[in-house]
Amino acid sequence: MDTPANEFRLSPASAARYSLYLRCLEERVRMGCRTISSKQIAEAMGIRADAQVRKDLAPLGGMGRAGIGYPIHDLITAIREALGIHRRWIAVLVGAGNLARALVRYQGFRDQGFDIAGLFDNDPSKVGTEIEQLHVFAIAQLPERIKSSRAEIGIITVPAEAAQAVADVLVEAGIRGILNFAPTVLRLPSEVRLTNVDLSIQLEQLAYQIQHGSG
Amino acid sequence: MDTPANEFRLSPASAARYSLYLRCLEERVRMGCRTISSKQIAEAMGIRADAQVRKDLAPLGGMGRAGIGYPIHDLITAIREALGIHRRWIAVLVGAGNLARALVRYQGFRDQGFDIAGLFDNDPSKVGTEIEQLHVFAIAQLPERIKSSRAEIGIITVPAEAAQAVADVLVEAGIRGILNFAPTVLRLPSEVRLTNVDLSIQLEQLAYQIQHGSG
Repeated sequence: MDTPANEFRLSPASAARYSLYLRCLEERVRMGCRTISSKQIAEAMGIRADAQVRKDLAPLGGMGRAGIGYPIHDLITAIREALGIHRRWIAVLVGAGNLARALVRYQGFRDQGFDIAGLFDNDPSKVGTEIEQLHVFAIAQLPERIKSSRAEIGIITVPAEAAQAVADVLVEAGIRGILNFAPTVLRLPSEVRLTNVDLSIQLEQLAYQIQHGSG
Repeated sequence: MDTPANEFRLSPASAARYSLYLRCLEERVRMGCRTISSKQIAEAMGIRADAQVRKDLAPLGGMGRAGIGYPIHDLITAIREALGIHRRWIAVLVGAGNLARALVRYQGFRDQGFDIAGLFDNDPSKVGTEIEQLHVFAIAQLPERIKSSRAEIGIITVPAEAAQAVADVLVEAGIRGILNFAPTVLRLPSEVRLTNVDLSIQLEQLAYQIQHGSG
């Protein structure tokens, strides 16, 4: 829809790998590196073949130079553009518990271009307080705050039984994507994107891998 | 390795879907249902074709009955066995911050068979305290506590720069799998399973989906 004409489209697996490349490259920048070879990237990410790295990065334009490698800073910029995170995204966070507290303090969000515009909860003892300089609003205020802050992403950290009602309010208010931490299956209209972070599922999948030796 | 001979092996995608089926079926149990059709499962999970559901569940044995559906309780048992979570798993949690607090309070872990045996941190103001009746130990005590509790899973919630050192201690102490919340790429021996929950990556992938309309 609003994909710029000159942008290529990544498969979900490539998009996920781009995020991992980004994390790896950012670490190299912190270490003071300025260039990196496909072999070094492969090693850092635990990928066996650096041909996979070169193939993944090829759509970004011939950025690698034989004997020198990739210029890390330019590669980061190109990956961020390909992922659509060269711009900033505004999110609202619903459910002001421990997880919300951890998320708000989590420096990574801001570093990657995500700003949390407000916290929302229905607990009267939380509404009106502040968490890390963010005001906690009543859930009834979500629609107006989403509009005034131009938030496009909703993060849900309420208990499972409250999650669908919160999702409905977010959708109604025009949110475009939801990051859902509640351990429940949300029903959303097809134009609203959904990413589930069900922490039990992550543990279940890890247990399955341990037991079956896949990976 | 220790895969029972009568267990079939799931693809990573099927294993992930089994977790989602489980969540959907558990919700039905809470609603008081006793049977469910493949069509109802497909609808609840937002899958278009119920043929996919029937195909996914076929390896569990012919549990579906025409006109009646699947017996929910038996289906849950069969899926939990297939995923290897019909047994309990013991985990240690390293990094006693807000995220750890949220994870420890998260009822879902216990419900799905995961017990947290202890919290570990190097902050002297945290060591010796209790979080939700769990004692916070010094990280130096990890090896002996892992052995005495028979923990097989390590959960890492320390900052990125401390994560590799913690992972090394966990591996050395014989942990079989790591659930890593630190936004960094961990290097582990191949026999140790790793699941990364990088919250920035989840948000990046959501932003990519919003922008490019995939899903």
